[in-house]
Amino acid sequence: MKKRGSLIVISGFSGAGKGTVAKRLVKDYGYSLSVSATTRAPREGEVDGVDYYFKSEADFKNLIDYNGFIEYARYVDNYYGTPRAFVERELASGHNVILEIEVQGALNIKSQYPDAILIFITAPSVEALKARLIGRGTEEAAVVAKRMRRASEEADEMINYEYIVVNDDLDECVHTVHSIVISKRCELNQNIDFIEVTKKGFEQI
Amino acid sequence: MKKRGSLIVISGFSGAGKGTVAKRLVKDYGYSLSVSATTRAPREGEVDGVDYYFKSEADFKNLIDYNGFIEYARYVDNYYGTPRAFVERELASGHNVILEIEVQGALNIKSQYPDAILIFITAPSVEALKARLIGRGTEEAAVVAKRMRRASEEADEMINYEYIVVNDDLDECVHTVHSIVISKRCELNQNIDFIEVTKKGFEQI
Repeated sequence: MKKRGSLIVISGFSGAGKGTVAKRLVKDYGYSLSVSATTRAPREGEVDGVDYYFKSEADFKNLIDYNGFIEYARYVDNYYGTPRAFVERELASGHNVILEIEVQGALNIKSQYPDAILIFITAPSVEALKARLIGRGTEEAAVVAKRMRRASEEADEMINYEYIVVNDDLDECVHTVHSIVISKRCELNQNIDFIEVTKKGFEQI
Repeated sequence: MKKRGSLIVISGFSGAGKGTVAKRLVKDYGYSLSVSATTRAPREGEVDGVDYYFKSEADFKNLIDYNGFIEYARYVDNYYGTPRAFVERELASGHNVILEIEVQGALNIKSQYPDAILIFITAPSVEALKARLIGRGTEEAAVVAKRMRRASEEADEMINYEYIVVNDDLDECVHTVHSIVISKRCELNQNIDFIEVTKKGFEQI
């Protein structure tokens, strides 16, 4: 029987590079990246099935009714959701599945998948984060300030996560996330069956 | 300030290769291996300071009186102990320290060092373990049977450990132990200070 994959939920500060970390986990370690569905219109350059699955509101609501999402939420006027079929299929075939999602979605997933691993990606310091938010491009001060306020809210959410990973060096950060996934499988509570089998094995000798 | 190293306690079935795993962690990842002190006589080929620190009973008892061991025990007629100075010095200078020790010593260390990581190394199955115990050399059936009984007792101790690591492939096993150490540093409870500093940092902007 193939061992079930792990479900990894990544959140983090805007600008902390969580999207890049997720993509590298796919590239370096063969993780499966879950693509969200949304009712918002595609932005320029966005590809259906790569950036999002773009759905009509009717289709989205129909999927809700048929339990098609492991979590979904409405932001402003649009729905966003994590399709259940992909996640279930990939986990069952032994692949580690990575989701990039906000805190409410993360907690929602944890309640359904108690073994899901909740990881928060952060910059090494507030100063570094600010430098990244500013350094990104040509944003105005007001845009940067808004992002910083959002980051401040995100900081309050860190306490909900099981692991805090600093993205100082990208390679190291990606390796650390993968180490967490490996480590998790060795935890005592993941190995109770193995221990019972081992103990029984000795009794039979 | 240098970040304190992690204290890793390894136990496991005789024949599961825990000694080899410990040596490889030293070689591959620069861990510091704690050498035990003992009052038993050196066996042929054993080197003082490498295999054990060989002590007289008077010296050993003196060290006990001066809090020189982080744990010690008496088996049959001999004392065995883990010297405190080495462990403390190495942890303080940021090195990961590895101890190979029995379950009672492991629990004793955990009570003093709550962040110590308790890892149990096992063979992939009872059959594999038996094959290793037999395959080691020219042991008689009675010796093998005795080892198997000991292994059966050890199986009952597995439940006291935080992580169960299967030593099927040595490279993978060593890498997994190192992954656990990396992972542990990212756990939420290891990062409470960092979160507080981050939150305060945003308040000041």
